[in-house]
Amino acid sequence: MATINENYLKLKAGYLFPEIARRVNAFAQANPAAQIIKLGIGDVTEPLPQACRQAMIHAVHDMGDRATFQGYGPEQGYPWLREKIAAQDFQARGCDISADEIFISDGSKCDTGNILDIFGSNNAIAVTDPVYPVYVDTNVMAGHTGPANEQGEYEGLVYLPINAENNFTAAPPSQKVDLIYLCFPNNPTGAVATKAQLQEWVNYARENQAIIFFDAAYEAFITDPDIPHSIYEIEGAQDCAIEFRSFSKNAGFTGTRCALTVVPKTLTAQTQAGAAVDLWKLWNRRQSTKFNGVSYIVQRGAEAVYSPEGQAQIQDLVRFYLENAKIIRDQLTTAGLQVYGGVNAPYVWVKTPNALSSWDFFDKLLHNCHVVGTPGSGFGAAGEGYFRISAFNSRDNVNQAMKRIISKL
Amino acid sequence: MATINENYLKLKAGYLFPEIARRVNAFAQANPAAQIIKLGIGDVTEPLPQACRQAMIHAVHDMGDRATFQGYGPEQGYPWLREKIAAQDFQARGCDISADEIFISDGSKCDTGNILDIFGSNNAIAVTDPVYPVYVDTNVMAGHTGPANEQGEYEGLVYLPINAENNFTAAPPSQKVDLIYLCFPNNPTGAVATKAQLQEWVNYARENQAIIFFDAAYEAFITDPDIPHSIYEIEGAQDCAIEFRSFSKNAGFTGTRCALTVVPKTLTAQTQAGAAVDLWKLWNRRQSTKFNGVSYIVQRGAEAVYSPEGQAQIQDLVRFYLENAKIIRDQLTTAGLQVYGGVNAPYVWVKTPNALSSWDFFDKLLHNCHVVGTPGSGFGAAGEGYFRISAFNSRDNVNQAMKRIISKL
Repeated sequence: MATINENYLKLKAGYLFPEIARRVNAFAQANPAAQIIKLGIGDVTEPLPQACRQAMIHAVHDMGDRATFQGYGPEQGYPWLREKIAAQDFQARGCDISADEIFISDGSKCDTGNILDIFGSNNAIAVTDPVYPVYVDTNVMAGHTGPANEQGEYEGLVYLPINAENNFTAAPPSQKVDLIYLCFPNNPTGAVATKAQLQEWVNYARENQAIIFFDAAYEAFITDPDIPHSIYEIEGAQDCAIEFRSFSKNAGFTGTRCALTVVPKTLTAQTQAGAAVDLWKLWNRRQSTKFNGVSYIVQRGAEAVYSPEGQAQIQDLVRFYLENAKIIRDQLTTAGLQVYGGVNAPYVWVKTPNALSSWDFFDKLLHNCHVVGTPGSGFGAAGEGYFRISAFNSRDNVNQAMKRIISKL
Repeated sequence: MATINENYLKLKAGYLFPEIARRVNAFAQANPAAQIIKLGIGDVTEPLPQACRQAMIHAVHDMGDRATFQGYGPEQGYPWLREKIAAQDFQARGCDISADEIFISDGSKCDTGNILDIFGSNNAIAVTDPVYPVYVDTNVMAGHTGPANEQGEYEGLVYLPINAENNFTAAPPSQKVDLIYLCFPNNPTGAVATKAQLQEWVNYARENQAIIFFDAAYEAFITDPDIPHSIYEIEGAQDCAIEFRSFSKNAGFTGTRCALTVVPKTLTAQTQAGAAVDLWKLWNRRQSTKFNGVSYIVQRGAEAVYSPEGQAQIQDLVRFYLENAKIIRDQLTTAGLQVYGGVNAPYVWVKTPNALSSWDFFDKLLHNCHVVGTPGSGFGAAGEGYFRISAFNSRDNVNQAMKRIISKL
């Protein structure tokens, strides 16, 4: 009799984005004339950079000639891509990261889930609240939690609230934890962490022999020169942190699929008996056995991000979305709302007015303005009373949405 | 103190293909003039079909225009691809499989490993011996086995020997198992299973409430019209089988990356308490949470496989490799070797002469003929005394390799 992984049954059925889709569809059916503007899901809208498209077309042609055809590539990614990432994303910022510490993958969502494969089942795990739901759900599926309570908090996880009171940057907990998820610039709040704040986390991790999972998917949106882009800009991070990055948001690869994970060779974790084991070796074994590399064509597209033209084009894209974020911040402030984020991040985090719940504000915005955002409570209990507005949309849509909010909310 | 998944430490360090690479590199360094022909790893060598390349170039252009740009796609794959697969690969052969039972992924290697996520940790698991090593290693990593013995057999797995005596098609075991890996046409032996043989497996699975993982990655190579291409051609299979398929070997996508997994909606497994749970729902939740879909560009390439031009082009590719296999079979037979497979599969399975061990035959072939194959013992203890020759190469290389074997072995 085949049995299932019963941890899946602990997952809350009403996942955030399906519930949003359900409410939007119901409203659209009841109001077929409404022109709904979606500033909900964090998906890009602008065309892929020309440099990436040219490189991919070239790569498709490579696949048509026996002499340049590519079969199985290295599971870790092609050296020509890993070397450019190491040089331009890390070494250029003073981070001592080498090409063979970079693992190319098809997405940070996959990697932040899969990374748990190489860790034991008895680690104490900390997440911020609100948080990207994938961090939590993958731990539930792996059996690292008990059931959820009414607020959706899972037994056994350590939740670190981030809110206006602590400037949306949680401090290390008083208790001992072993694995810590941090995401800066933060999804969903748009907050960033200073060097001093990250140094505190690194110090905590080293003192407690903990590992930090640092999600830097939004680093390209940092405008403040004092804010670190990589955890490896922090002294000691190479002994305690794994970093996740993506081409989804800087180069618009959400539908093209390429990302990377950095596992420094200096990183270790322990056996139950207290022996140190290299995490690089475990992740390399995991990827070699359960993954077969990213499409050659897509990796050539990602490589083009590092050409001078590619760099200019992704900077244009980032500037475009950041200008959207500025418009959203300014206009919502004009509308009398309290806003956070949106300066070093493509997300604006809004305090709901009049103590409305996140979902009530969602419904009000949808019904009065025909604008869709994301309820803060969908990212965790401490997100209740907040709301996420995404800057990923056309300028026309952003302007139109803000006009409606100012006049009709 | 972060702890590791200690099951990884049970894995045998000398994985098959790295060990082959090590010996080949050592020989090449010592013999720089030798022109080594590699008939080892099962990687394709011929260009991608033109229909696929054209479709991918079109898709790259789609990504350059805001109106046709694609962001996040469905985690399960685009409906236009899933519908063509359901119609042409399954319904056309009388299998009652619908589009929403097909999950598009970036590789069968990934899927055959990831599928374990949704199953419990106390299932009895059967694999054939020899076997594709990924089935075994992913179970070791998931903690479903004890340590390995000297032959590399892991405690707790049920090994079903396949050899010349049973025509390379294992019969169902006498004991009860819960999860069963079958691969037909078989890697590494090139054997196929008849309808009657698969019906025996389906009957066994239904009687024991077991689930069959059916790897059909090589189905395109079936030439015998009586051999089933899909497990769903067998009555009752929809109640007990998950099927894995790939574009790697029929359309040459090893470096392009696209595959699919079929999870029928009628399929269930049990909780410890004996409640039936839909596996489709669990796999859908797994993929939605830990995967973000395959590149739009690649999915358009896979879709083109189902156009009339695409079908003609992949048939040409398959015919080309099968003609290579026929040459290998014929020439090795002329050389006095006993061969199996290679008729409905791109692999020829060779009995080593004079009771040589698999690795001794590997060394002899490399040193005398400068030809690389794969030692059968690398696929499991019962592969000892056998050797795999792959038909994935150019005609010139195959002819040259066979000439050397006949004259110099």
